Amino acid sequence: MADPIPEAAIRAIVEAGRRMAERNWVPATAGNISVRLPGGRIAITRSGFHKAHLDSGAVMAVGLDGRPENPALRPSAETGLHCGAYRAFPEVGAVVHGHSIANTVLSRRAGESIGLAGYELLKAFPGLPTHDAAIELPVLDNDQDIARLQAAVEARWARMAAPILPGYLIRGHGVYVWGPDMDAALARLEGLEFMLACEMANLSINPLPGGSAP
Amino acid sequence: MADPIPEAAIRAIVEAGRRMAERNWVPATAGNISVRLPGGRIAITRSGFHKAHLDSGAVMAVGLDGRPENPALRPSAETGLHCGAYRAFPEVGAVVHGHSIANTVLSRRAGESIGLAGYELLKAFPGLPTHDAAIELPVLDNDQDIARLQAAVEARWARMAAPILPGYLIRGHGVYVWGPDMDAALARLEGLEFMLACEMANLSINPLPGGSAP
Amino acid sequence: MADPIPEAAIRAIVEAGRRMAERNWVPATAGNISVRLPGGRIAITRSGFHKAHLDSGAVMAVGLDGRPENPALRPSAETGLHCGAYRAFPEVGAVVHGHSIANTVLSRRAGESIGLAGYELLKAFPGLPTHDAAIELPVLDNDQDIARLQAAVEARWARMAAPILPGYLIRGHGVYVWGPDMDAALARLEGLEFMLACEMANLSINPLPGGSAP
Amino acid sequence: MADPIPEAAIRAIVEAGRRMAERNWVPATAGNISVRLPGGRIAITRSGFHKAHLDSGAVMAVGLDGRPENPALRPSAETGLHCGAYRAFPEVGAVVHGHSIANTVLSRRAGESIGLAGYELLKAFPGLPTHDAAIELPVLDNDQDIARLQAAVEARWARMAAPILPGYLIRGHGVYVWGPDMDAALARLEGLEFMLACEMANLSINPLPGGSAP
Repeated sequence: MADPIPEAAIRAIVEAGRRMAERNWVPATAGNISVRLPGGRIAITRSGFHKAHLDSGAVMAVGLDGRPENPALRPSAETGLHCGAYRAFPEVGAVVHGHSIANTVLSRRAGESIGLAGYELLKAFPGLPTHDAAIELPVLDNDQDIARLQAAVEARWARMAAPILPGYLIRGHGVYVWGPDMDAALARLEGLEFMLACEMANLSINPLPGGSAP
Repeated sequence: MADPIPEAAIRAIVEAGRRMAERNWVPATAGNISVRLPGGRIAITRSGFHKAHLDSGAVMAVGLDGRPENPALRPSAETGLHCGAYRAFPEVGAVVHGHSIANTVLSRRAGESIGLAGYELLKAFPGLPTHDAAIELPVLDNDQDIARLQAAVEARWARMAAPILPGYLIRGHGVYVWGPDMDAALARLEGLEFMLACEMANLSINPLPGGSAP
Repeated sequence: MADPIPEAAIRAIVEAGRRMAERNWVPATAGNISVRLPGGRIAITRSGFHKAHLDSGAVMAVGLDGRPENPALRPSAETGLHCGAYRAFPEVGAVVHGHSIANTVLSRRAGESIGLAGYELLKAFPGLPTHDAAIELPVLDNDQDIARLQAAVEARWARMAAPILPGYLIRGHGVYVWGPDMDAALARLEGLEFMLACEMANLSINPLPGGSAP
Repeated sequence: MADPIPEAAIRAIVEAGRRMAERNWVPATAGNISVRLPGGRIAITRSGFHKAHLDSGAVMAVGLDGRPENPALRPSAETGLHCGAYRAFPEVGAVVHGHSIANTVLSRRAGESIGLAGYELLKAFPGLPTHDAAIELPVLDNDQDIARLQAAVEARWARMAAPILPGYLIRGHGVYVWGPDMDAALARLEGLEFMLACEMANLSINPLPGGSAP
């Protein structure tokens, strides 16, 4: 019999779901949320639950390979992307995935990345002590084959300069963001979504190509 | 004397109203909400109540033909559209109707349908296991003669390939969505409204005709 | 000593303030709200209170001429506009005034009225049993001289065909809406703001002049 | 040992954080909030806390020079800007700093100020008894060197005609607003953000240069 999931991990996931739902980032049963547990385990949302009203019954444990501890439960379809972040970055303690209007619309129109520059909120990311910085947020093509999608993510990481930006977009699908703990992951998510919403707003008032320059 | 309406049906309708009001989908006394009951009965919101603060007194029972069990109560004006969905699709357990800014504005500008393609959230609809799909959401002209409007809906269904998409728009008026139960109907509603809001946002940053292509 | 204000009137005003604040229609200390009392009295919000957190101390009584029953209290600066509606229309029981982004921006760009046509929500107004209707919402120039502004409102009413539309805009300032009771006034306000928000959204995706036609 | 921070100051800061978070003006751990205390002290939010859920542990005391009373605690990075306002304007009792989409996007596109004219809400600022007025909201370039940024603010004040407008923008970063107490500071913040949101909305429906004229 598997160990129970620590109460603090469940609370962190439930509260993250509530906060993401308040912002309309987890419509229908979209989105998924996870926390790293001791011993190579991950607590993650089960498939098919609305994130506004999670409880302990909506959270399950998987291994770093994504395999459910209880084979009767089905984890989020994209569990493999969560596990990929935990495997690649030992310091990561929480991963969140949401769908916002801004990340959906911009990722559908973007090439292979979205540039963000000159925002004070860039400081929400590690290694950026000043607003006078620029990041290229990776945008990957959507794929229902999650193993193949995770391989594409890893191939992209291999091409990126260190430190790897703790997040990426999937085209027409949403954002993945991670951090050392849930508070940090959510702060980075809020910072990123804020900058994407600013980009959207800026484009909406500027019909010129390349209109997002400061 | 008619049977009482089961408490669970009333709770589902009250809670759906609250959630739809939070999203500004039921302004003024707009919108209506129903649940199928055993024995060919339907529980539906009465006419003229604000959906943010429903209670058992705001819910009444009608037959599949829309006739009130208690003739002293007036059901939502569009009860005939709810009944039409229940009659046509035996698996349907709940129907919701809301007015959003996106569904109102887009339906006023659309022809006889709105195409949605390439969204991960298309998976919220049955028969679409992948984002790599496209749907044509029917748009019907508004009509105060509900029997005539329902006939137009049925004529449209007759022209559509199976499986029939579980929703449609009425021009300048709103959306109808249904599902096997209220949770499913609301999840489809949230998924659909999210994609319509994305279409609106996409058009707002693209002055070119046909700008919504990914 | 003046009669106390009935508890129900205070509750209606407090709750209206809370609902309007939730929608961002009463920023800073903007907006004002009133209810007709028996005996030619009006209960109205005092000047300078935030509408999100009203209580009985934020509500005072004035006569139909706007004169405070307690001369130590200062009513909303625009009390004269409330009184004007109560004097002109004996069936009016409640008046609300709010500032929305849509009503502010559209009124600044409008001529002397804003046309609304083809919306199901037009049925929220009296005398419009169908969506297949059109209204011309009056837009008046802003004026800090409230008596002069009320005279301009009355001159406009004199030029309008019956039934007089239960609302108007003041340019760059906000909307006034009234109804037989507070629920009706708020339902009309919600319906009107929804249609104005639709007009805004429609214009934002259509750079052509006259783009709001269905 | 330093004196404790009065409970009323903590309550004012906690509540301001909650209200600003509700409006999405303090994403991630952005924003900071302060209150003047008797004796040349200032209560201000500590660095790194989310403003939606502040408590007394998230508030600390500094001197008018920004020096922490308890050197083990780190105040908000921009404490120097708060202190600058308190030193320059003895009547100021509270200072708030937030990031909104409107203030971020508009400040990135603006020159050295943003003009606002013809809004009823201009009356939220002191010395503007009428809507028939215009203000120039200063926009300063962002700078991680807060002492240098505060010097730039003071140089700008020196060029402005009295009365100095109680607020300014930092490009790509956010707004600073102050008032005699927290209620007044928040009312001015709400009024200013409302007008900036109106400017954004107006620009989004008007592709012409100079489109914000009434």
